[in-house]
Amino acid sequence: MLTDHFKDAFRAHPAGVAVITAHGPAGPVGLTASSVSSVSADPPILVFSLASALGSAGVIAAAENVVVHLLGARNAHLASLFARAGADRFTEDLAWESLPAGEPLLTEAPHALRARVLSRTAVGASILLTAEVLEVLASGEPDEPLVYHNRTYHRLGTHSAL
Amino acid sequence: MLTDHFKDAFRAHPAGVAVITAHGPAGPVGLTASSVSSVSADPPILVFSLASALGSAGVIAAAENVVVHLLGARNAHLASLFARAGADRFTEDLAWESLPAGEPLLTEAPHALRARVLSRTAVGASILLTAEVLEVLASGEPDEPLVYHNRTYHRLGTHSAL
Repeated sequence: MLTDHFKDAFRAHPAGVAVITAHGPAGPVGLTASSVSSVSADPPILVFSLASALGSAGVIAAAENVVVHLLGARNAHLASLFARAGADRFTEDLAWESLPAGEPLLTEAPHALRARVLSRTAVGASILLTAEVLEVLASGEPDEPLVYHNRTYHRLGTHSAL
Repeated sequence: MLTDHFKDAFRAHPAGVAVITAHGPAGPVGLTASSVSSVSADPPILVFSLASALGSAGVIAAAENVVVHLLGARNAHLASLFARAGADRFTEDLAWESLPAGEPLLTEAPHALRARVLSRTAVGASILLTAEVLEVLASGEPDEPLVYHNRTYHRLGTHSAL
């Protein structure tokens, strides 16, 4: 009951959308996350959480380095692709390349943050990670933001400032 | 330089808006936060960060219990009020009441989560807090979401699903 009300409240709470990638033992992995937030600007540190330690999430939870791609409205297809369980993601249809240390970079995202994982903390059934940003790769063109709300991806109307 | 690029990237990353309140030694305090995120649903645990340990942030960092109000588009005035340094917030113009254990509840927010702080971790110059939600108070009417982007509050157009 409390858990249901908690889920309802956060379903209504909008969030930016990111795809987090890492280079794992079996190749590149990635997943869509709406939990990425800036914690500290100097040094530049971000936080995100993983709801599982299985599959791609498990590879990211164990990775030394990750790339956090902050998505724009033109990247909604990436958000959907990396949110789908079991999808074969790194195909020739995906615009990506390997960075020198092996991390997969999605070249269409407007901002990609290469980061070193600083901490991993079990929180309830999830894992909370902090990561220090080593490099900001502005790999794509500037874009309007992509907003996740009520389990749907939205564009932010430019006319809608309050 | 890296810090500037990091700030630019997160300025473009949209976020939901919350006001976090606590009952301090000198009375009620509150501040606006765009870093609130759900970590675990069962048990219900959220995370947020504070960029300072001074003033209201210091009181919240030290509090045993907090109330995390997830704001709707009609609450943009609350977001502005609690983002202003030194503002006298808990005046008779503000719709609020004290909960039984003393925490201040803003009665206009669509969702208010009463929570017990579980952990406080220094991360760079900031503090990362996790808190277990004890109660979800749906104190206001349902509302459209309020989105913080590029240092401005926005309404999410209902026509804009991708």
